Amino acid sequence: MEKSEFSRNVILCNGQFPSHHIPLSILLAAHTRICCDGAANVLYKKKLQPRVVIGDLDSIEPEIKDAFADILVHNSDENTNDQTKAIQWAVSQGIKDVVILGATGKREDHTLGNISLLVAYAKMLSVCMVTDYGIFTPISSTTVFQSFVGQQVSIFSLSQNKEISSEQLKYPLSHKTLQSWWEGTLNESLAQSFRIVCNNAEVLVFQKFT
Amino acid sequence: MEKSEFSRNVILCNGQFPSHHIPLSILLAAHTRICCDGAANVLYKKKLQPRVVIGDLDSIEPEIKDAFADILVHNSDENTNDQTKAIQWAVSQGIKDVVILGATGKREDHTLGNISLLVAYAKMLSVCMVTDYGIFTPISSTTVFQSFVGQQVSIFSLSQNKEISSEQLKYPLSHKTLQSWWEGTLNESLAQSFRIVCNNAEVLVFQKFT
Repeated sequence: MEKSEFSRNVILCNGQFPSHHIPLSILLAAHTRICCDGAANVLYKKKLQPRVVIGDLDSIEPEIKDAFADILVHNSDENTNDQTKAIQWAVSQGIKDVVILGATGKREDHTLGNISLLVAYAKMLSVCMVTDYGIFTPISSTTVFQSFVGQQVSIFSLSQNKEISSEQLKYPLSHKTLQSWWEGTLNESLAQSFRIVCNNAEVLVFQKFT
Repeated sequence: MEKSEFSRNVILCNGQFPSHHIPLSILLAAHTRICCDGAANVLYKKKLQPRVVIGDLDSIEPEIKDAFADILVHNSDENTNDQTKAIQWAVSQGIKDVVILGATGKREDHTLGNISLLVAYAKMLSVCMVTDYGIFTPISSTTVFQSFVGQQVSIFSLSQNKEISSEQLKYPLSHKTLQSWWEGTLNESLAQSFRIVCNNAEVLVFQKFT
């Protein structure tokens, strides 16, 4: 079997359904599709079989709810969103790595919430989020990223007081704290890889596809 | 003249062109349209006249660049994005209030950057961002918001150490600091208005349209 760059465990959220070929190919190639509530409607119409459908299940069309009756996991906890319920289920099943798809592109408050939760999930399993534009990876310590010359890169710190440095980025960070979300945006890779240096921090790295 | 709820000074960014009737009607009713770079292409095709087109101007189609030759403002400052260049131009013209449209919906790193910059702009003029889903308003002190029962509301704090309280929200905040972006999401208005209590903070309030 050809080794995939991405995990084959996928969580499909109920944001905008992927249209870019990279998230679409990840979704198609997945062997475990964990589906958040209303996203089941699209998955069903695409004839893609989820392993499980999780949420308060009030967004699924009745016919599709019937078709997926055996794999529904009802969870109406108001303190967590559906994406988090899906992560919790993955962890409960012993899943060690997962790619999140369809988590952005509709309501911006959901987009912000979903993206920021990556740093919490990273404490439980290996996780990234693939959108129609690029990849978000949460890190907490120094990490090397595979890249290409000219790749657009943005760095978001969720730990306002932690210092971040970089190597092989056009606009280098040197022991810098990022107070605002925009401060680490619009950087660019200078090589086949770049390095983000941090320690015990909560940092999100976005890499644009092309 | 009928009083508009929103400013009639509009900045159109180069994210996803609005499709919801509220941002579209704001764009149509605007008397001053400040257009960021590549967004000029769409505005031209929609036969809407901008007052000015601002940016490094490398994303405008040649024919459209010619059509708008008299109103181009070239600004290639690498330290600010086009949205900020548009705000700076507005301030330089004495404009006191502005609505930002088309700032989200494409690259998520741009979306995050653009949204977060609202708190910086709020120090210079009255500003809000209207998307296809709702309205982001930056505040720094206690503010009452017009609302309706059941309106979905999310609160994002960019000052992790500042306390926030709320009145007339379903899940009340009481002297709470919001450490993560998801913590203040998915709240709900209980009345025709709600109140966010904070002092000398940087807070973004999102109100969903319906």
